[in-house]
Amino acid sequence: METAGKHTEDLSLNNDIVTRLLVDFVRDETHNAGFSKGIIGLSGGVDSAVAAHVSAKALGSRNVVGVIMPYRTSDPQSKDDAELVSKELGIPTEVVDISPMVDAYLTSTHSVDRVRAGNIMARQRMIVLYDISSRGKGLVIGTSNKTEIFLGYGTLFGDTACALNPLGDLYKTQVWQLAGHLGVPEKIIRKKPSADLWEGQTDEGELGFTYRDVDQLLYNMIDERRSETELLKMGFEEDLVGRVKEMIKRNQFKRRPPLIAKVSNRTVNIDFRYARDWGI
Amino acid sequence: METAGKHTEDLSLNNDIVTRLLVDFVRDETHNAGFSKGIIGLSGGVDSAVAAHVSAKALGSRNVVGVIMPYRTSDPQSKDDAELVSKELGIPTEVVDISPMVDAYLTSTHSVDRVRAGNIMARQRMIVLYDISSRGKGLVIGTSNKTEIFLGYGTLFGDTACALNPLGDLYKTQVWQLAGHLGVPEKIIRKKPSADLWEGQTDEGELGFTYRDVDQLLYNMIDERRSETELLKMGFEEDLVGRVKEMIKRNQFKRRPPLIAKVSNRTVNIDFRYARDWGI
Repeated sequence: METAGKHTEDLSLNNDIVTRLLVDFVRDETHNAGFSKGIIGLSGGVDSAVAAHVSAKALGSRNVVGVIMPYRTSDPQSKDDAELVSKELGIPTEVVDISPMVDAYLTSTHSVDRVRAGNIMARQRMIVLYDISSRGKGLVIGTSNKTEIFLGYGTLFGDTACALNPLGDLYKTQVWQLAGHLGVPEKIIRKKPSADLWEGQTDEGELGFTYRDVDQLLYNMIDERRSETELLKMGFEEDLVGRVKEMIKRNQFKRRPPLIAKVSNRTVNIDFRYARDWGI
Repeated sequence: METAGKHTEDLSLNNDIVTRLLVDFVRDETHNAGFSKGIIGLSGGVDSAVAAHVSAKALGSRNVVGVIMPYRTSDPQSKDDAELVSKELGIPTEVVDISPMVDAYLTSTHSVDRVRAGNIMARQRMIVLYDISSRGKGLVIGTSNKTEIFLGYGTLFGDTACALNPLGDLYKTQVWQLAGHLGVPEKIIRKKPSADLWEGQTDEGELGFTYRDVDQLLYNMIDERRSETELLKMGFEEDLVGRVKEMIKRNQFKRRPPLIAKVSNRTVNIDFRYARDWGI
């Protein structure tokens, strides 16, 4: 196998144009929906930092609320990094400890493994964000990137839940690029990506490959629509190609609304998909 | 205005055919996704009763888990009715009191109104259902009907969250019809629909119109695609038509996945919508 050509695809962004597109997207979609505020869960990681930067440019700093939601086992550094972002942007923050909500369920249930516990935490955070958005008349702005969305590396109705998502079409490596352009602190850009759901967790450790590698593969698979044969010729490992394809396929349900049994002329998400099609 | 013709539209179902379609839907979609079990939140109401009946026919009684999730202010009758359904069907049940999870948040937050509290309850129930589905390797089967979905009368990421929904294309009055056909106890069919989120709550009281009336209107608006002029000619009240149109429009976001800012060639839910289009 030739591996030399493997990493030549250019995922670099035109940072100015992309920033403008994302800022306009957040501003237009928020205002068109009749809102002026955005609510963002700040994890201390690079994705939510970029989403907060974009949203502050779009809506103004005082119209973006950063919500920091530690669990009792969360790394205290995560909260510090989240506060660093909110301070630099001058956005108001709220801190909500999700431990009582999470533990209320965990203590009533036997032997919940850490993946299930992680899903519960992500969903409790969704509840907090949506309650704050309801109270403050804002929209929840999502922070899932394209890599996570394609791999299904996120919790359905948890961290993937939002009204609009400025990062969902950017691979993780592109989020890093944009973060540098936007002035996100280097320490946040450089730290190992982690959902911080248990001690020592890192995305790349859990996934078994690096974002740099998988983003090259995803870009060629999805954006360039290269066949498996082409991907192997380019030097991508057969194991990785197979595994990533399987992840994309298996997690398609996380990217689509629930299936509805069609029994009538006009069914939601089948032939009733957009209010505009129907002239209202 | 002529009102005589208002209620002549026939929403009656061919019960045998619809039952077969729904049973096949639940069986095929569950098995095709690689699962054999279904998880249903049993509220004691007619929707979840019908969903449980259909699912038991599709998957077999022992492969359907009915989950009863009272809050401390829930009407005890709701639990009794849920248990009546599960006993008649012979499906295993679990009871999970959501009070500690809900109260853990409510006690840390000031002046949460009952609508926000209701959303929190609906979302805590989602967390329980998804955790049980994860533990037991089953799919969450939804119970939202077409009336609720169009009116947006449900909690996003709460009671509307599911893997598949056999009832989403049936109006409430059609669910009642099918319930009779399937043998759901009369007392469950006849009781006033309620989310039981606070004492004395009824759907129709909260909505300000009856399901019988609004289903006629929705059927003519959506399935028959009648214009506003035609609807008024048919005798529907202008106020009701305007209000229902507005509800459908305002709640479109609950029926669609989150918006993603498009910056690449292939964007989730814009031009990457189905895994099958992409040959994987």
